[in-house]
Amino acid sequence: MRIRVINPNASEAVTSRIALAASAAARTGTEIEVIRCSSGPSAIQSHYEMVLAGPGLLDAVRDGEQRGCDGYVLASFGDPGLDAAREITRAPVVGIGEAAMHAASYLAGGFIIVTTLPRMRIFAERLAADCGMERHCRSVTVVDCDIRTLAADPAGMLERMALACSEALDTHGADAVVLGSAGMAGLGRDLSQRIGVPVVDGVAVAVKWVEGLADLALATSRRGPFAAPESLR
Amino acid sequence: MRIRVINPNASEAVTSRIALAASAAARTGTEIEVIRCSSGPSAIQSHYEMVLAGPGLLDAVRDGEQRGCDGYVLASFGDPGLDAAREITRAPVVGIGEAAMHAASYLAGGFIIVTTLPRMRIFAERLAADCGMERHCRSVTVVDCDIRTLAADPAGMLERMALACSEALDTHGADAVVLGSAGMAGLGRDLSQRIGVPVVDGVAVAVKWVEGLADLALATSRRGPFAAPESLR
Amino acid sequence: MRIRVINPNASEAVTSRIALAASAAARTGTEIEVIRCSSGPSAIQSHYEMVLAGPGLLDAVRDGEQRGCDGYVLASFGDPGLDAAREITRAPVVGIGEAAMHAASYLAGGFIIVTTLPRMRIFAERLAADCGMERHCRSVTVVDCDIRTLAADPAGMLERMALACSEALDTHGADAVVLGSAGMAGLGRDLSQRIGVPVVDGVAVAVKWVEGLADLALATSRRGPFAAPESLR
Amino acid sequence: MRIRVINPNASEAVTSRIALAASAAARTGTEIEVIRCSSGPSAIQSHYEMVLAGPGLLDAVRDGEQRGCDGYVLASFGDPGLDAAREITRAPVVGIGEAAMHAASYLAGGFIIVTTLPRMRIFAERLAADCGMERHCRSVTVVDCDIRTLAADPAGMLERMALACSEALDTHGADAVVLGSAGMAGLGRDLSQRIGVPVVDGVAVAVKWVEGLADLALATSRRGPFAAPESLR
Amino acid sequence: MRIRVINPNASEAVTSRIALAASAAARTGTEIEVIRCSSGPSAIQSHYEMVLAGPGLLDAVRDGEQRGCDGYVLASFGDPGLDAAREITRAPVVGIGEAAMHAASYLAGGFIIVTTLPRMRIFAERLAADCGMERHCRSVTVVDCDIRTLAADPAGMLERMALACSEALDTHGADAVVLGSAGMAGLGRDLSQRIGVPVVDGVAVAVKWVEGLADLALATSRRGPFAAPESLR
Amino acid sequence: MRIRVINPNASEAVTSRIALAASAAARTGTEIEVIRCSSGPSAIQSHYEMVLAGPGLLDAVRDGEQRGCDGYVLASFGDPGLDAAREITRAPVVGIGEAAMHAASYLAGGFIIVTTLPRMRIFAERLAADCGMERHCRSVTVVDCDIRTLAADPAGMLERMALACSEALDTHGADAVVLGSAGMAGLGRDLSQRIGVPVVDGVAVAVKWVEGLADLALATSRRGPFAAPESLR
Repeated sequence: MRIRVINPNASEAVTSRIALAASAAARTGTEIEVIRCSSGPSAIQSHYEMVLAGPGLLDAVRDGEQRGCDGYVLASFGDPGLDAAREITRAPVVGIGEAAMHAASYLAGGFIIVTTLPRMRIFAERLAADCGMERHCRSVTVVDCDIRTLAADPAGMLERMALACSEALDTHGADAVVLGSAGMAGLGRDLSQRIGVPVVDGVAVAVKWVEGLADLALATSRRGPFAAPESLR
Repeated sequence: MRIRVINPNASEAVTSRIALAASAAARTGTEIEVIRCSSGPSAIQSHYEMVLAGPGLLDAVRDGEQRGCDGYVLASFGDPGLDAAREITRAPVVGIGEAAMHAASYLAGGFIIVTTLPRMRIFAERLAADCGMERHCRSVTVVDCDIRTLAADPAGMLERMALACSEALDTHGADAVVLGSAGMAGLGRDLSQRIGVPVVDGVAVAVKWVEGLADLALATSRRGPFAAPESLR
Repeated sequence: MRIRVINPNASEAVTSRIALAASAAARTGTEIEVIRCSSGPSAIQSHYEMVLAGPGLLDAVRDGEQRGCDGYVLASFGDPGLDAAREITRAPVVGIGEAAMHAASYLAGGFIIVTTLPRMRIFAERLAADCGMERHCRSVTVVDCDIRTLAADPAGMLERMALACSEALDTHGADAVVLGSAGMAGLGRDLSQRIGVPVVDGVAVAVKWVEGLADLALATSRRGPFAAPESLR
Repeated sequence: MRIRVINPNASEAVTSRIALAASAAARTGTEIEVIRCSSGPSAIQSHYEMVLAGPGLLDAVRDGEQRGCDGYVLASFGDPGLDAAREITRAPVVGIGEAAMHAASYLAGGFIIVTTLPRMRIFAERLAADCGMERHCRSVTVVDCDIRTLAADPAGMLERMALACSEALDTHGADAVVLGSAGMAGLGRDLSQRIGVPVVDGVAVAVKWVEGLADLALATSRRGPFAAPESLR
Repeated sequence: MRIRVINPNASEAVTSRIALAASAAARTGTEIEVIRCSSGPSAIQSHYEMVLAGPGLLDAVRDGEQRGCDGYVLASFGDPGLDAAREITRAPVVGIGEAAMHAASYLAGGFIIVTTLPRMRIFAERLAADCGMERHCRSVTVVDCDIRTLAADPAGMLERMALACSEALDTHGADAVVLGSAGMAGLGRDLSQRIGVPVVDGVAVAVKWVEGLADLALATSRRGPFAAPESLR
Repeated sequence: MRIRVINPNASEAVTSRIALAASAAARTGTEIEVIRCSSGPSAIQSHYEMVLAGPGLLDAVRDGEQRGCDGYVLASFGDPGLDAAREITRAPVVGIGEAAMHAASYLAGGFIIVTTLPRMRIFAERLAADCGMERHCRSVTVVDCDIRTLAADPAGMLERMALACSEALDTHGADAVVLGSAGMAGLGRDLSQRIGVPVVDGVAVAVKWVEGLADLALATSRRGPFAAPESLR
């Protein structure tokens, strides 16, 4: 099985982290292709950058279709382009945000999301609402750190993340943490050991979800809002 | 006052209709610039096309900033790119969807949205939720007609729209209609006469809302999620 | 165009502030009539007083109909009597609460409402829910000051309002302020300068909204819940 | 125990029906005083009439305070003036709408509300939302009949109500009926026999709820939004 | 009238407190039978214990049917087994949680729930959502004390409860307290005197609600989800 | 990896279907143990039966803990006992209802649930709300057939299911189907071929989800509401 994991930004540090986490999550026999969108912004930390990243992300899906990919992971926490991607492939497409939150809802009574910058809070909040996790998500906390800094020296950031998470877990009565940025990919286990609750890494979970959907031959619906766009038919 | 009205698709027929409706709505002294995004898709009738239309729309805002525009109307009903546009200008930016729905909520106990194709329903439903109009919007009805066909011969479509709306108003106990596509711009008055309830044209209302906000010198917040993106600072 | 702005309470100080703000907001050619309901309570700071203020407010609308008013602004933040007023005129009727919140939603990711007394919080919260702004309104903060004191010496209150707002903006991650009392009308610009985010004055915005709706000949629906009451037919 | 049941309209037919239902519901030892607000509108079938009925209803509460009433039932389905009444007495105040819906939620998986005229639907829908019964209330159905006609010849209306209710129960998968107008008071048992599901009469239930709260000496909170209005202190 | 009050746990201390509160609430002529489920867990402080308590609770209802009970109170705050109980009797069944919250909504603008252990918070939050009181319930606070300790020495706990409640009322702007555990039954009046707001004891209120429903001959619906289970027909 | 799939009812026909679907879904190396709760009811088609099934289901989990199971699937659509099971094992526990709905939300703009009997509708509706899928679930449709009949002759039921689903998909504008009963396990592919949209079988998906969570060593939180019950410590 070949799963394409798409990082819609151009950052090599972030892409490396995603690659590490996705490969570690994949089972034997799953081939992970991590795509960096070199035409995209170096980070998606605004709505503006999210819009700019869209076309490159969709190119990566269309290219994947040429190569016969069996599924796609969109590795940007706000899950941009998710519905658009679903229109242009029949293979399953899962966003790291929705995957992480649904998984966390199986493991805890309530979770917090830890994200990078204060302005990213609104992305996490809206995503939680869009994927039905408004009640399960008790709060969004920030480490106040650029995604590239984070991705470049994640170990150095761990302590800061642990502090922010521990405080937010206590204040909001939550019992698990969702990593709210692809730049944090791979930090789940270390962070979990420090703070004593499950930490869910969306990159890893989305890989497992796509493996599962593809195993079951569950494809995106051909009917309704995810039918192929007229301009591509 | 100069208001830039941006049609994120490339259709000339749709752009003409928008221009007509916006100019008719503007007061003396307001200069309306209608921008057609020639690099965009010829219609936005899928999420895929919505994503592709994004960068062109933002270019049109950035260009407007060079020319000193006092406000922006985003003339695509799903209100794509709205938050991104707000990050790159301090002038007020209003989407035709949110403007139309809020106006309709002042005029009726509940409204329906009339849109073009069945697959556009989900756009209207999500937009209604995003701008707080979930309870006010009683239903989304469709005329099952491509936006370009509609824009090219709106008079021919009026009867069909009147039928669809009348039936939906009765079924869902609603009392006003929101035009759910920029391709319907300018049809409000004629449709209203046929069906006997207010019909709200988002292009017209958004022009009035921007005039009003600009008059009051109300600008997009410099703080929080709409602060300028780092890559543009 | 003649817009009647109705203050349902009897306070002259509050009426003066409303008049100032409404006149400053009106464009050339708009005639603003501010009506003080002398039979009403001197302030609306309880549900009891809100009920007592109702009939006088409706008298002011009916009287406006005799005089051919083109639209109405109801200048009490809880938006009492709004639906009733819509039943007895075809001209557009806009409440200062709904207008302010919808405008704020165009300018910021989230807003706070600043109101007078702790017991007014529930009015603001319910109004936010009623006009679909539950998610956009992050919190309601109070200056703990009677509306008449406030209206009599608004400059003296500015510092106190600035402090309360700044703290609430930080705590709740909001980016704009809605003035939650007609007694605060006209304070928007000064307060905005102190706290660095947009401050939305509902009296001013509602005047612009009514101008816009009247320009477009958008009238309250004749059908459904806003049809004329039988006793007036 | 003395319970004052207030009909905020002036209709004698409606008042008689309320009196019958309230007296039948009261236990031995409870004295029921039914008050007709002769200064009020002859029916409350619009928001306009609801506003006009407010002051008379509050007068009836204040007068009840002079006479030492132990509790109040507000016998108009939209529950107008409820919060205002709670500010001016410490005795418990219960509206027939909230009482009926909460009772119905104990008896069935979902209920419908049957009301008089199409324009009353919005009152019932909003009330259901306000008292937390949005999910429990599956639909609002109408018999399309003026409240006074209904109250004057309820037996004649029973068949029509039974038909409307049976159809709505089937269509919406509901299992109980809430009488949505004080003019229907007393019809519960007969209607229930015809349609085979519980029919909840708010006048009767509200009397029982007030008896219960008064037995337990549970009084309206002295603190917060229901503290006495300043003008009455 | 005979009302069976069922304590689904096996604790004698808790059962005694329930018996005291229920008897004090009952009117002359109401016979209260308090049933302790000796086969149940000694406390219900986890979902696990809640599931284990279910069959015993239903046995107590079926046994009550043999003895001709006129109504049932389920005296465990999370309201476990409520819907199941409604399927196996036509007599009214009321849970102490829903009864307390609905009563509190009549008395205050917003309430808090005080419960025993932090892990019980999620029970109270879900119950508030299930019975429509999500907006009315402003917060859930804990005294951090096992239900059996509490029930054994309630007077000793009063001060601690008063402190926790006073702080939560201030922080969350609430005006009444709901006792969130059957082990607190009977403490309402004393706690209310200390903190100055109404305190609602669900055991007492549920007894009154059942008396009222039984007086009105309102029975659980025979149709729909509460019809008798096939295995019992 | 050993995954225990628990059927809380005693039906052999249903258990066989679950076993077939679970085994087909499992990857090489996953050992599936399907447990039939012989002490449970022969079907769970009421709240009463759901309560009775609870203790047996938990026994099956506790027994699984003795045998070192790596994860659990609860194979009853209403997801009974889910939170309780999470308290008594650290291995991941997934319900077939939540798994199916989350998967369907990745594949379609909206889905319907097809269930057995009309009285099961409320189970599906509540579950959709509990797992955040209220907006995604457009409707619940029924084939009006007992789960045991269905499980005994699923092929015979396929046509009936196809008809019910096709009609509901059209009426409610949905694009995928969720199988709303464990008795339908294994019918996904055949049904999907007949109706042309994805059909999601919760038994299959939950197996994949548990495989994924176990691969990632994601365990239920030890803190908060899913900590071990005191009586088991």
